[in-house]
Amino acid sequence: MFAVTILGCNSAIPAHGRNPSSQIIQLQDNSFLIDCGEGTQMQLSKFKIKVSKISHIFISHLHGDHYFGLIGLLSSMSLMNRTQDMHIFGPALLKDIILLQCKASDTDFSFQIYFHELGENGLIAETNKMMISSFKVNHQIDCWGFLFKEKKNPRSIIAEKVKSYEIPSSFYEQLQKGEDYQTKKGTIIANAEVTNENEKPRTYAYCADTIYNESIIPIIKEVDLLYHETTYLKDQEDKASARFHSTTVQAGQIAKKAEVKRLIIGHYSSKYESIDSFLKETKEIFENTELGIEGACYYV
Amino acid sequence: MFAVTILGCNSAIPAHGRNPSSQIIQLQDNSFLIDCGEGTQMQLSKFKIKVSKISHIFISHLHGDHYFGLIGLLSSMSLMNRTQDMHIFGPALLKDIILLQCKASDTDFSFQIYFHELGENGLIAETNKMMISSFKVNHQIDCWGFLFKEKKNPRSIIAEKVKSYEIPSSFYEQLQKGEDYQTKKGTIIANAEVTNENEKPRTYAYCADTIYNESIIPIIKEVDLLYHETTYLKDQEDKASARFHSTTVQAGQIAKKAEVKRLIIGHYSSKYESIDSFLKETKEIFENTELGIEGACYYV
Repeated sequence: MFAVTILGCNSAIPAHGRNPSSQIIQLQDNSFLIDCGEGTQMQLSKFKIKVSKISHIFISHLHGDHYFGLIGLLSSMSLMNRTQDMHIFGPALLKDIILLQCKASDTDFSFQIYFHELGENGLIAETNKMMISSFKVNHQIDCWGFLFKEKKNPRSIIAEKVKSYEIPSSFYEQLQKGEDYQTKKGTIIANAEVTNENEKPRTYAYCADTIYNESIIPIIKEVDLLYHETTYLKDQEDKASARFHSTTVQAGQIAKKAEVKRLIIGHYSSKYESIDSFLKETKEIFENTELGIEGACYYV
Repeated sequence: MFAVTILGCNSAIPAHGRNPSSQIIQLQDNSFLIDCGEGTQMQLSKFKIKVSKISHIFISHLHGDHYFGLIGLLSSMSLMNRTQDMHIFGPALLKDIILLQCKASDTDFSFQIYFHELGENGLIAETNKMMISSFKVNHQIDCWGFLFKEKKNPRSIIAEKVKSYEIPSSFYEQLQKGEDYQTKKGTIIANAEVTNENEKPRTYAYCADTIYNESIIPIIKEVDLLYHETTYLKDQEDKASARFHSTTVQAGQIAKKAEVKRLIIGHYSSKYESIDSFLKETKEIFENTELGIEGACYYV
C-alpha cells in the first residue's frame, strides 16, 4: 500500500467541521506526516492511525494552520514513551519554537528529534522504501512542497529461476538492477531469464500553499498523484493571487500541464460551508480530480 | 448568569473523546478563558460560545495541555479581524512563545495583546463586573490558580423609593454602599428605606494542576463553586503525589476543609476510559460534587 490520508482539509481557521492542514503518507510500514495543524493528534486518533509508525514529519511553512499541532503531537508521543528517533523537516525557526516550548515546560522528550532545515530544491530524506525531495513554492512566506518517490529496483527476481540456476543471494542486488550473471564455468545467464521488469516507481507530490506557479511543473511532471491547494473558487482569482493562494481552475491547469495521473484538491477557505463546487469547477479543467476529504484515503 | 463551561476535562494526552484543559467563565457579557489546551477554539465553536466576548485569558502554567491551543485561538481571532484588546495572564515565557510564533509567520495580530506575568498572590484583573486574583498552587513547574469574585455593591436601589424621595442619581453609588441621604432641608432618609440588601458576591475558584495542598484553603474558603483537579482515583495516591497531582479523595478533602458550597472535578488521566468512579469516590468525602464534563455549564 502507498496511500495518502487527509487529516485536515481546511485553510486558516478551522470551520464547518473541517480541520487545518495535515496529511499522512503510508508506504507499507513507513509513515510520513506532512504538515500538522492544530488537532492533528486528535485526527490521527479518530482515524485510528498509529502515531508510533511516523518517522518523518515535513512542515511546509510556518503559517499556524500548518504546524500549531506539532508540539502537541510530539508531547503526546513523549508521554507515550516513544523511543524511536524523529526527523522533522521545516523552516529554521521551527526548531527554536519547539525548543522554547520544551524549555517552558521543563521537560525533555523521551526520544531524539533531528531537525532538518529546508533550503534548496532536492533530496532531503530517504528510507529503505521512499525518497523524499523538497521544492520551493510561491507563498506569502517561505514555503516548500514535497515529492515522494517510491524506491524500487527496475527488476524483480523470479525465485524459482535463480534457484534453478544456483545464483548466490549475494548477487541478487545486481540482478535487480539489471545485470547478467556469469557462472563459475563462464556461462552467461541473461538477466531477463531470471528477473521480471518492475512497474515504474509510484510518486506523490504535495504542493502546500501556493499561488498559481508554472515553475513547479517540471518537478511534479507525470506524478501518479498530485495534491494542489484550491483555497478559492474560480470567481475569486484576484483574492487568491493577492493572498498567494490558488483557485480550482488554477489547480486543474497545473495538473493538466504537468500531465499528472490524478489530482486531490483541498485547503478550502472557511468562507465556504459547502465544498461541492470545488470538485465541479476543477473537473471542468482536469477530469481526474478528487475532492480532499478528512479521513479519506487516496491510493497512489 | 455567572457560569463555568468546561471545554476540556482530560489531563496530558487527549483521549477517549476528552480534550485538554480549558474552561470559560461567563458573567453577563463578560467572558474569561482559563487555560487553552489544543483544540480549545474547536470546542468553543462546537459549544457555540462567542470568542469575541473573551477579554481576558488566564494560563495557569506552561505544561502543553494547558496552553498549546492559545496561539491558534489568537490567530483565528486575528483572521476574524478582532479589534478589542486582549489581556493574557501567564508565566513569563508565554509571551516569548507567542511572539516567536508571530515572527515565524510574519504576521501582526489585528488587535493589541497585553501580557501580564503571574507572580505573587493577589488581585490581577478587574472589570466592571468581576475581580480576579491569582494564587500559587504546588505543581511540577510554576503554577497558579485563579479566584473569580463578582463585583457587587452591598445594597441595591429600590427605584420607586428613590424617585418618591427625589434623591438625585448622583447619590445612587453612595446609597448602594449603604450611606444615608440627607435632603436639602436636612431630613435624613435612612438607607434601609430606599435600598435592599444584596446577596453576597458569588465566587469561583480554579485550582489548576496541584498536589494535595492545604495552604490554598484560606484562599478558597467558602467559595460558591470550586474546581479541583482529580487526575487519579484514590488507589493511585502515590502516583498522584509523585507527579504533583491529586486524587478524588484529596479533592474532596480540600473542598470539605475549605467549606465550599459545590465542587467540580476534572483533569482525568488518559488511563481511565470511564470516569464514573471519579464522581463516586469524591462524593464519599464531599457530597456536593459534580463531574466535570465537556460542554456542561455549571452555574456559580
